[in-house]
Amino acid sequence: MENEAFASFLFFGTLLVLKMYAVAVITGQVRLRKKAFANPEDALRHGGLQYHREDPDVERCLRAHRNDLENIPPFLFLGAAYSFLGPDPSVARLHFLAFFLGRLAHTVAYLLRLRAPLRSVAYVAAQAPCLSMALQILLAEFRRAL
Amino acid sequence: MENEAFASFLFFGTLLVLKMYAVAVITGQVRLRKKAFANPEDALRHGGLQYHREDPDVERCLRAHRNDLENIPPFLFLGAAYSFLGPDPSVARLHFLAFFLGRLAHTVAYLLRLRAPLRSVAYVAAQAPCLSMALQILLAEFRRAL
Amino acid sequence: MENEAFASFLFFGTLLVLKMYAVAVITGQVRLRKKAFANPEDALRHGGLQYHREDPDVERCLRAHRNDLENIPPFLFLGAAYSFLGPDPSVARLHFLAFFLGRLAHTVAYLLRLRAPLRSVAYVAAQAPCLSMALQILLAEFRRAL
Repeated sequence: MENEAFASFLFFGTLLVLKMYAVAVITGQVRLRKKAFANPEDALRHGGLQYHREDPDVERCLRAHRNDLENIPPFLFLGAAYSFLGPDPSVARLHFLAFFLGRLAHTVAYLLRLRAPLRSVAYVAAQAPCLSMALQILLAEFRRAL
Repeated sequence: MENEAFASFLFFGTLLVLKMYAVAVITGQVRLRKKAFANPEDALRHGGLQYHREDPDVERCLRAHRNDLENIPPFLFLGAAYSFLGPDPSVARLHFLAFFLGRLAHTVAYLLRLRAPLRSVAYVAAQAPCLSMALQILLAEFRRAL
Repeated sequence: MENEAFASFLFFGTLLVLKMYAVAVITGQVRLRKKAFANPEDALRHGGLQYHREDPDVERCLRAHRNDLENIPPFLFLGAAYSFLGPDPSVARLHFLAFFLGRLAHTVAYLLRLRAPLRSVAYVAAQAPCLSMALQILLAEFRRAL
């Protein structure tokens, strides 16, 4: 049983990492399209130092990516720890799926600048399974310590 | 024994993740209070595009959070790897507790802008158990390879 | 076999975490040398509020570090998950070594501002083993689910 939850965790964790990589690729494409590079050496390679500049679309990609950094690595810890508790595999899968869909929707809402509060709703939807897992890990530790 | 160290790691790891989430919540509160939003769509929802702006208090929260990103995920790796080495459970707990208290103090010193070098002292205090764990992991691998 | 791949993963994972810590130390040194501090309380301690300012060399360090944050925690997940699949230990070690060398080269190219596209080549070289591991994790899950 625990094994099945853990396998499911590895599957969704990998999809989430690939989703993060996709944001990095999109950021690179936007930099090339808008000609806005963070480093002078990159700007020089793409037309000149005048392209060493900021751009609101690039900044948006960076914010979406940073929000991933704030949330996906913590999930990769919580999901593994929670899997070790031997949860019901379908309940566990539901946690992982909810987080995955929430984060996917967050990225889409961010990059396509959907109107507020769609992005925030996706963020909260993804946080819910994380808080549930965190609570279950803490409870298991309290039970063990008694 | 290893199991006990690992359970202790999961406990403190979860507390650290919750601490990071708290910084995110505080950032959101400061954004609302100071009316300073990173995205035009958020500003529009909260009074108008003039609130699409930076704010030093928000920037401070973002720096505190970023410092967490630089340090807490590495701990989540080191702490797990170190637990697998089968350390003495009370020595292991001391490592995790020291890191947790150091990071908690770091966040408090950052957000309450305590005078320097309090924040740096907390940072170094949290790094010490990480370096100890990293060294023990490398030593175990060298011993295994011989 | 799996154990040997996992031990190798722990070894390279720890080296990568230490590499990240080194970037943090370098950032601090550049801040002191260029007298450019992100926080007024730090500037006050080092000569006055006029040193509460940005600096292109500090920004460069921060970008190198951020790129690590975007790539090293995902590797720490993928590498562990991939090790659990029971890969051939020498093939596994090759994945971890390639990622480590790619990331080391990326940091060196970033901090020494080597000419483009050296940094990007290092980035892509480090991504290749990650994509290989991600694919193998997903394939194993598909095989398991059938």
